[in-house]
Amino acid sequence: MENSVGIVKLEYAKFSQATDIIELESGQKLGPITLAYETYGQLNAEKSNAVLIVHAFSGDAHAAGYYAGAEKPGWWDDMIGPGKAFDTNKYFVICSNVIGGCLGSTGPSSINPLTNKPYALEFPLITIADMVKAQKKLVERLGIKKLLSVCGGSMGGMQALQWVALYPEMVASAIPIATTLKHSPQQIAFDEVGRQAVMADPNWQQGNYYEHTQPERGLAVARMIGHITYMSDESMETKFSRRLKDEAYSFSFASDFEVEGYLRYRGDSFVKRFDANSYLYITRAMDYFDLSDGKLFSKPEKVNTKFLVIAFTSDWLYPVYQSKKIVRALKHNNIDVTSCEIKSTYGHDAFLLEVKEQSRLISHFLKGVYLNGK
Amino acid sequence: MENSVGIVKLEYAKFSQATDIIELESGQKLGPITLAYETYGQLNAEKSNAVLIVHAFSGDAHAAGYYAGAEKPGWWDDMIGPGKAFDTNKYFVICSNVIGGCLGSTGPSSINPLTNKPYALEFPLITIADMVKAQKKLVERLGIKKLLSVCGGSMGGMQALQWVALYPEMVASAIPIATTLKHSPQQIAFDEVGRQAVMADPNWQQGNYYEHTQPERGLAVARMIGHITYMSDESMETKFSRRLKDEAYSFSFASDFEVEGYLRYRGDSFVKRFDANSYLYITRAMDYFDLSDGKLFSKPEKVNTKFLVIAFTSDWLYPVYQSKKIVRALKHNNIDVTSCEIKSTYGHDAFLLEVKEQSRLISHFLKGVYLNGK
Repeated sequence: MENSVGIVKLEYAKFSQATDIIELESGQKLGPITLAYETYGQLNAEKSNAVLIVHAFSGDAHAAGYYAGAEKPGWWDDMIGPGKAFDTNKYFVICSNVIGGCLGSTGPSSINPLTNKPYALEFPLITIADMVKAQKKLVERLGIKKLLSVCGGSMGGMQALQWVALYPEMVASAIPIATTLKHSPQQIAFDEVGRQAVMADPNWQQGNYYEHTQPERGLAVARMIGHITYMSDESMETKFSRRLKDEAYSFSFASDFEVEGYLRYRGDSFVKRFDANSYLYITRAMDYFDLSDGKLFSKPEKVNTKFLVIAFTSDWLYPVYQSKKIVRALKHNNIDVTSCEIKSTYGHDAFLLEVKEQSRLISHFLKGVYLNGK
Repeated sequence: MENSVGIVKLEYAKFSQATDIIELESGQKLGPITLAYETYGQLNAEKSNAVLIVHAFSGDAHAAGYYAGAEKPGWWDDMIGPGKAFDTNKYFVICSNVIGGCLGSTGPSSINPLTNKPYALEFPLITIADMVKAQKKLVERLGIKKLLSVCGGSMGGMQALQWVALYPEMVASAIPIATTLKHSPQQIAFDEVGRQAVMADPNWQQGNYYEHTQPERGLAVARMIGHITYMSDESMETKFSRRLKDEAYSFSFASDFEVEGYLRYRGDSFVKRFDANSYLYITRAMDYFDLSDGKLFSKPEKVNTKFLVIAFTSDWLYPVYQSKKIVRALKHNNIDVTSCEIKSTYGHDAFLLEVKEQSRLISHFLKGVYLNGK
């Protein structure tokens, strides 16, 4: 566990006061709310060293360290810890699970206090902005008035951008990685096919499956589609090529190719940790996301946020051109932005795998923002 | 109907003799076989002007002209007819539906003569080579010893290549379009997700659904995935952008975006014309396809075939680099090859849509081959 934050524990922040109720973008209201989160490192006396890590679609609050007895660390453990990009000797790192999810925060699988049953589709539709509104409550409860940085890849990058759009005065810097100002029709299309796969499963039962089994096969298919889009043509060639699991074709519909076995495995393991309704809600939130055409700067006069924008050459799900559009929008508004296109063959997954180059960029960038704020 | 071949009729060639039984690549045997096909133009006295058009995954024998009373012409009507790329004033054009399909040729939905019930999964697995072996029987029955050309896009291109691999002496020229020497792991992955979507549908019933309803929802999901891969990021942006069907977000899982409505429509219409088991069999045939590493020239001494290889810049399902590999393999074997990378934003669908540029290339190429053979 060298350079590890060590053993960590999932914590829960409950917001149950009438004043805690969130007015959602849809016009509906949501509350009470619980947010699952973790923190690493120490908040300094000035409370000026807090970094919020925001996670991708199926991510969770467990970004770093180990749960007691667990072998696998958090999902961004390579990036968070003593001496790492998000150096926990310097920074106080927070990671919270999004609302709409199923990994500790309030979502469609949570108990609806009005019925004492899981919300299912009674849960209101939420947006990226709604996720950020909930996170703001957590940040405030932790006594933080201004975040040193908000950083995330993929849907995490959308949240980072949304933080600036909603609360620019609370964000000294933002690091959106492998993300976009808005979902393109192709991105919407992939999400929609995943949703259709879930809803086509008769076990979905219009979302009311919590007393039975969840729509596992539909959800597995949705996840398999996702996994193809997270990799690249090249990384799949490197990882699998046309290698067979056995010596010859089976001349059946068994999984002959390693890539087929891998996808089936990924689909099957996903359904054990993820809720099918959360799949619907969170993909919908991404599809509704649109901060293009100036909407990123609803309060341009208040934006003093510094940006580091990172993209990966082989990412075809959130292609480089989308990051360039973010940079263009920032420059157009005279925002201080550094951008980098990292050469990688890993596709969209690169934000989880290209540790070295990202670490160099992020640690340098954060140091600058931190010293500047002193 | 200017420049149209006019009213056409689907024809059936039945191969029911013991000598007609095909020994499949799997080692199994298939027979009797029916092939659905159409022809346009006239076979000349020397029988030297026959062009075989081979279709893509979900294509059929109806490549040109109109069925009596129909409003829509065949799928490549822009390319086949008097004065068109495949000029029916000059050439005798044949298009046959593949075995394994469900649009007139023998496939899993056909009646198994041993049981008098649809084959379902009793149908043997078939390969691209098996499809070509069946086509050869049709070509021979039509009295043709040598084809002027074999041409097709996507899976049609695989068949064109396979013709050269199996029967080089029967093919004066080949035009593989938007295709590959072998399916990559990404291509296999997309097919596998489609198959999983079909097989996840409880109506699939291990393929025995013919007396009931077919697995419509699973098949529709599979087709939706396919459609995303046939378009390009750019063509989807042009066609749909983020346009909504109604004025505002529904904050539900209805199809808010035009792109969602389009995909659902495409999925729903596909299940009316296509058999779910054929979906499994034909995708499997493509995944098994591999003519790389010299397998394209099993009889190199007999290959006198001229090639025209066409690819499209925005095709990410069968990317340009795969066509380049075909060209490299041909040049390596001193085969006469012309190649062209057509600039297009249509993605893989370009082989159906980029009529002008393809027509120019193909009509010129065919003329050369034809005159050369005189």
